[in-house]
Amino acid sequence: MIDEEVAKLLELKVQLGGDEGRHQFTLKTAKGTRDYNPKQMAIREKVFNTIISCFKRHGAENIDTPVFELKETLTGKYGEDSKYDLTVSFKPTVLDPTPSQVPFARYLAMNKVTNIKRYHIAKVYRRDNPAMTRGRYREFYQCDFDIAGQYDPMIPDAECLKIVHEILSELELGDFRIKVNDRRILDGMFAVCGVPDDKFRTICSTVDKLDKVSWEDVRSEMVKEKGLSEEAADQIGQYVSLQGGMDLAERLLQDAKMSQSKQACAGLTDMKQLFSYLQLFQVTDKVVFDLSLARGLDYYTGVIYEAILTQTGPVPVAAAQNGAGEKAEEGVSVGSVAGGGRYDGLVGMFDPKGRKVPCVGVSIGIERVFSIMEQKAEASAEKVRTTETQVMVASAQKNLLEERLRLTAELWNAGIKAEVMYKKNPKLLSQLQHCEDSGIPLVAILGEQELKDGVVKLRTVHSREEIDVSRDKLVEEIKRRTSDV
Amino acid sequence: MIDEEVAKLLELKVQLGGDEGRHQFTLKTAKGTRDYNPKQMAIREKVFNTIISCFKRHGAENIDTPVFELKETLTGKYGEDSKYDLTVSFKPTVLDPTPSQVPFARYLAMNKVTNIKRYHIAKVYRRDNPAMTRGRYREFYQCDFDIAGQYDPMIPDAECLKIVHEILSELELGDFRIKVNDRRILDGMFAVCGVPDDKFRTICSTVDKLDKVSWEDVRSEMVKEKGLSEEAADQIGQYVSLQGGMDLAERLLQDAKMSQSKQACAGLTDMKQLFSYLQLFQVTDKVVFDLSLARGLDYYTGVIYEAILTQTGPVPVAAAQNGAGEKAEEGVSVGSVAGGGRYDGLVGMFDPKGRKVPCVGVSIGIERVFSIMEQKAEASAEKVRTTETQVMVASAQKNLLEERLRLTAELWNAGIKAEVMYKKNPKLLSQLQHCEDSGIPLVAILGEQELKDGVVKLRTVHSREEIDVSRDKLVEEIKRRTSDV
Repeated sequence: MIDEEVAKLLELKVQLGGDEGRHQFTLKTAKGTRDYNPKQMAIREKVFNTIISCFKRHGAENIDTPVFELKETLTGKYGEDSKYDLTVSFKPTVLDPTPSQVPFARYLAMNKVTNIKRYHIAKVYRRDNPAMTRGRYREFYQCDFDIAGQYDPMIPDAECLKIVHEILSELELGDFRIKVNDRRILDGMFAVCGVPDDKFRTICSTVDKLDKVSWEDVRSEMVKEKGLSEEAADQIGQYVSLQGGMDLAERLLQDAKMSQSKQACAGLTDMKQLFSYLQLFQVTDKVVFDLSLARGLDYYTGVIYEAILTQTGPVPVAAAQNGAGEKAEEGVSVGSVAGGGRYDGLVGMFDPKGRKVPCVGVSIGIERVFSIMEQKAEASAEKVRTTETQVMVASAQKNLLEERLRLTAELWNAGIKAEVMYKKNPKLLSQLQHCEDSGIPLVAILGEQELKDGVVKLRTVHSREEIDVSRDKLVEEIKRRTSDV
Repeated sequence: MIDEEVAKLLELKVQLGGDEGRHQFTLKTAKGTRDYNPKQMAIREKVFNTIISCFKRHGAENIDTPVFELKETLTGKYGEDSKYDLTVSFKPTVLDPTPSQVPFARYLAMNKVTNIKRYHIAKVYRRDNPAMTRGRYREFYQCDFDIAGQYDPMIPDAECLKIVHEILSELELGDFRIKVNDRRILDGMFAVCGVPDDKFRTICSTVDKLDKVSWEDVRSEMVKEKGLSEEAADQIGQYVSLQGGMDLAERLLQDAKMSQSKQACAGLTDMKQLFSYLQLFQVTDKVVFDLSLARGLDYYTGVIYEAILTQTGPVPVAAAQNGAGEKAEEGVSVGSVAGGGRYDGLVGMFDPKGRKVPCVGVSIGIERVFSIMEQKAEASAEKVRTTETQVMVASAQKNLLEERLRLTAELWNAGIKAEVMYKKNPKLLSQLQHCEDSGIPLVAILGEQELKDGVVKLRTVHSREEIDVSRDKLVEEIKRRTSDV
C-alpha cells in the first residue's frame, strides 16, 4: 500500500513539474557570486582610484599575470628547496586563489626581471566553500604592490609601510595601526626561549592567534597540544606582550637572552633602521613594533606587517562580519585591511639557476575596504553618484528632439559629459527629475526663442538659477561650472 | 625480447627522470594564457581610459556581473520561447565566454531594472581550444555598452553608433567604416526572394560569410549545400550587393518586391530615421547601410552593425593575424573591431512574467584593439612610458640618503609622483640614466650647498637645463612643468 501511495505521489509530482515554468523559477547568480550594481561599482571605482593613484605616485608599473597557474608553479615542484612548501597555505587546484606573490615570483624568474616596482589588481577565484554571509565569495579582488631588487636594507620595506599609511589615510576608513615584526626576530626569540627547531613553525602559527584569542588560550595550546615546556611558553609570553618602536628594538638588542641569537640581532638592527626611515616618512604615529605579530605564510624571510582598523563603532562591525572567526584568504587576517612582508627566497625557487631576487610587498584587503566603504555610504546622508554627467540637454517645448540631439553631439564632441532623453517630446519636469535623481548639476534648456537668439538657457539644478549663455560660450561655461567634477 | 627492451628503456627513463631538476624545467604560464608586461599594460590602460571616458561622456553607469552564470541562465532554460536558442552560439559550460548580453539580460530581469545605460568591461574565459598564434587566448577582455529601456525608435541605436565612431576616431587605429543593417530587412528580403521560412537562419549564416568569401562561393553554398533555388539565390545576390545611406533605404521602400514585406518596410523606415539622427551626430561619413551585413547571434531583433578597419598596411595585417579564418568569439568577426545591435526579446526570456525590456548595445573588440595598438607602438619611434613619475629625487654627493627620503616623502604628501633610488650612495649618472630609461622628465638634485641654501636644483632631463628652486616653491614648480602629465 505504501508503495502505491509513493507511486501516486511521484506521478503527481511529475504532473506538477510539467506545470512549472515561467511563474515558478527564481533567477539567481551562481553560488558564491553576486552582481555589483552601479552604486557599488561607483564606490569600487573610488577605492581603486585612491589606491592606484598612490601606487603611481610611488612610481609603480602595472603587470598582469593569468588567473590560473600551472600546478607545478603552485606546488613549488620546480624547486628543490624543501623550506618552501607552498601547498601548506592553499590547495593546489587551478582555480583556488594563490598568494599573489607566487605568480609574481614566477613572472620575475621566467622573464629574468631582477628589479621592478609593480602593482597588480585582479579578480581571483576560489573553488570551494563560498560563505557569502561571512564575505567569502568565489569571485573577489586581490590588490598587491611589490618591490623586487637587490637594494640597501629596509628602504623599500619602509616605502611599503608608507604606502599603507597613505592609502588608509586617504580612504578615511577610521583610525588604524600598522603592526611590524620580523621573521628573524620571531625565530631568534623561539630559539632563545628553548623551542626545539622542528617546532618553530607550529609554535609560530599558535602565536599568530594572539589577535583573536587570549594569551592563556595560546599558552595552553602550546603546552597541551604542541608539547612545549611550560618554561619555554612563559618566556615566549613575556616577549610577545612587548610593543614599542625604535626604543624597543634597542632594548631587545641589549636583552641578555635575545642578544644571544644572531638572527634576532640582525632582525632588531634592521628594525631600528626601518624606524629611522619611517620617522623621515612621518608615519611612526601609526606604526608599532609588536612581537606578537606572526603572519602565516612560510615564505616571509624578514620584516612582516599588518594594518588593522582600531576604531570602534559601525565600521569595525562591518569588517568583523566580513571574516569573523577565520583567517581571510586574501592574505589579511581578521580585522586587518593590509598585510605583507619580505620574501627574499621565493623567486630563487622558480629560477633554473636558483638566482635570488629579494622582494618585499604588501596586499591591500580590498574586498574588506569595499564593504566598509559601502556601509559608510549607507550610513551617510550624501548620495553616491553613479554617473559623471555634467549637463542634461532638455527642452520645455515639443518637436525639438533634433535640436536637442544636435546640441548634445556638440557637447560630446567638446568632451562634455552630457545626457539627453530618448523621447521625442519628454516633459520638462521628467527631465529635471532625472537630474535630481542622478545628481546632474546643470541643465541646458533649448526653446524656440533660445534657438532664434543663438543662446541656451543654463540652469543650475540645486539653486534653480537660470541664465542665458551664448551658444558658442556654452562649452566653456559648463567646464567652468563643473571643474571640480 | 621486445618486452625486455621496453622494460629497460622504461627503467632508463626513470633514472633520467630522477636526474631532472633545477636545470631541466622550463617555466611557463598555463596553456592559452600569457603575462602582460608593464609596456603592454600601459597600452591597455590607455585604451581603457579612452573607451571608459567615452562611455562616461555618454552618461553610462558601470555594473559587474559574475564571470560564470548558472547553466539554466546560459542555456535559456528559463524561458519557453523557442525562438531563442542560446546554445547555438556557444557551449553551455560554465567557464566558456558567453555573449555578454546574456548576463546583462539576466541582471535586468532579476533586479527588475527597466531602464539603464551601462558599460561592463571584464575578463572572461574560454575552456577549450586556445590558439595563441591566432589570438585565441583562454583569458581575454570583453567590453560592452548597452542601453535598455522603452524609448522612441532609433535614438539609443544612433547613440551606440556615435559611440563607436568616437572611440575608433580617438584610438586612431586608422580609417574605419561602420556597416549597418536590420534583422527585419534581412528577413523581409529572404521572404520576398522566396527563401522558405525554415531556411531563413541557415541562409542568413551563409550571407554572413560575404565579408570573407566571394559571392560565387556564397551562392554555391546556398544552392548546393542548403538546397536554395538558383532564382532565389540570384535575387538575394542583387540585394546583398547594395550599399548606401538614407537614399538606399528610400529606394528600397519603393522597390516593387521589397515593399511587399511589412517587416522589411518597418526596418527600412527605421533605417531612414536612424540616418537622420546620424546626420545630426555628424557620423554619416563612416556609416554605410549594407544589405550583406548579417550578424550571427539569433537574439538580434532590429538594427545590427559592425565596424571594420579599412586601412591597408601594417595595421590590418595585425588585425587579420588575430582571428584569420574564423569568427572571433568576442562577438566581432574577422577584421571587425566593434559590433552589436538591438535585442528586444532577451530580457523577457528571463523575466518570470515575460516582461520585455528593449535593449540595444555594442561590443568593442578590445583584444584586437590592444594588439593593433601594441603593433603601432612597436613600429613607432616614440617610447611607451610605463610609469607616470614626474620627478626623481637624486643627489651627486654621499651620505644624503636621509635627505633624499625626507624630500621624497614631502613630494608624495603633496601629491607629486616621485621616485628615489633605494641605495645609500647611488651614482648621479645611474640616477640620471634611470630617468632617461623610464622617461622621468625632471630631477630634483640635493647637495650640501642646496640644503644650506634651502633650495633644490631642478633639472630638466631632455634639455639638461638646471635651475635652483626654493624648497617651498618646489611642489608648485614641478606641477607647473608637468601639468600635461
